[in-house]
Parts: sequence; C-alpha cells; structure tokens
Amino acid sequence: MRNEDKKRRSGCPVTFGLDTFGDRWSLLVIREILLRGKKTYGEFLEAEEGISTNILADRLKHLEAEGIIEKSQDPENRRSFTYSLTQKGRDLAPVILEIIIWSGLYDERSNASKTVLKKINKGREGFEAALRADQT
Amino acid sequence: MRNEDKKRRSGCPVTFGLDTFGDRWSLLVIREILLRGKKTYGEFLEAEEGISTNILADRLKHLEAEGIIEKSQDPENRRSFTYSLTQKGRDLAPVILEIIIWSGLYDERSNASKTVLKKINKGREGFEAALRADQT
Repeated sequence: MRNEDKKRRSGCPVTFGLDTFGDRWSLLVIREILLRGKKTYGEFLEAEEGISTNILADRLKHLEAEGIIEKSQDPENRRSFTYSLTQKGRDLAPVILEIIIWSGLYDERSNASKTVLKKINKGREGFEAALRADQT
Repeated sequence: MRNEDKKRRSGCPVTFGLDTFGDRWSLLVIREILLRGKKTYGEFLEAEEGISTNILADRLKHLEAEGIIEKSQDPENRRSFTYSLTQKGRDLAPVILEIIIWSGLYDERSNASKTVLKKINKGREGFEAALRADQT
C-alpha cells in the first residue's frame, strides 16, 4: 500500500491520495484531530473503533513521514507528545467533509456526527475554512 | 475492514464511508468506471496499478453488495458482464474530485489526470454534475 515503486508507477492523483492517507486507520487519526480536537496518543487510542497500539504507532509514523501531521513536545509534560495537522493535513478537510455528506445520504445508522453534518449544511464554506485554518 | 460488528459499533460517517468504499482497490474500480468509462473485468485488470484477479473479484463482489456498482449481462456478448455505478456510486464523485484536487496541490508526480484537474478547475459543478448523472 505504501510501496514507493507502486506509487511511482502510477501518476494518478486518486492513487496518490489513497497511498498517502487512504487507509481506515490513517483517516481515523486525521478525523480525531480535525473534527474532535484530539492531540495525544492516548486520546487516539480511546476512539470508539478501537485502534490497536501497534497500528496507531505505525500510522502516526506514516502520517508524519508524509507531512500530514507533526509531532511536538507537550509544553506541560516534557515526556509526552502532541500531534497536530500540518497545512497539507488540514487541506484534507474537504475530502473528509465529502465523505461525511455522502454517508449522511446513505448510512441510516450514522448518528455520531449529525452535529458536524448540521454545521456543514448551515454553511459548508465557513465550516471548511475554519477547519483548514486551525484545528485546535 | 468490512466487519459488520465494527461498522455497527461506530456511528461515525467517516468510518461508514471508509468501510464502504475506502480501500485502495475499491476506489480504483470506482475511478475506472467514473473517470475512464471502463466497464468490464478485463478492462479493470488493465489499470496501471496492477490489481490482481482475486482482489478484483473480491472488490467487485463487495461493491455490488454495498449497492455502489451493478452488474449486467453484456447485450453484445451474453457470456460476459459489464459493471456500472449506481446512483449511490455516482454520488461518490465529489469525494473522488476532492482527492484529485488535494493531490493536485501536493503530488509533484501527479500527471495522468491533469486533464481531469483542468476540467474541474474550468467548472467543478458542471463536471461533477455530469459525472453524477451519467458515467458511460
């Protein structure tokens, strides 16, 4: 999936996107930061989908290497770290929003983010701009 | 990834979307139909990413079960089948377009779909509407 040769073989932007952020767990981390303001390893572990520690560590490393998130020392506790989205990561907001809109149309069980869907419907551009500008 | 229990546990629309279409190979099939007008098993196999026959068969079955694509007998050759997107599948056009736009910003090697990017930039709404309405 993240095989560099495979990436080089295809110039397709859909494939590029999927290679960079398009697995379930990578997008889960992006969602936690972008929509829920989560920042730490411990907080990501608490997501209801139940990501395992080794997958989480792998995806954080991958997303950092791809320049989608950045890791910094927690100013309040020098032994722990916080993660935030880079501009490249925040620019994924429209992708995430389109997934939410599509799921709003087709997923009857979808409920957790009805509030997000409401915000999008109220004014998508404003909501998207806010997410892109600052995710904290 | 397509574990029904896991889906039920989370009401998150991002997770719903990823469970339904969000693996590299499922989106590749959707891309082939939506952007390239491909229709047959043989045509999907020819995509430059090199999908294997067993993965392709699995993803076609999955996408059909999820109501994203539908299979019909080829009127010209009763022994072969063609695949097309349902409305639910065509409604993924904005997700695909946002991935293309994002990759246009960040992938220096992206070239195969510069034409698609140009069409999007010329008039995204028109291009998106055309994709949603008819993918043939």
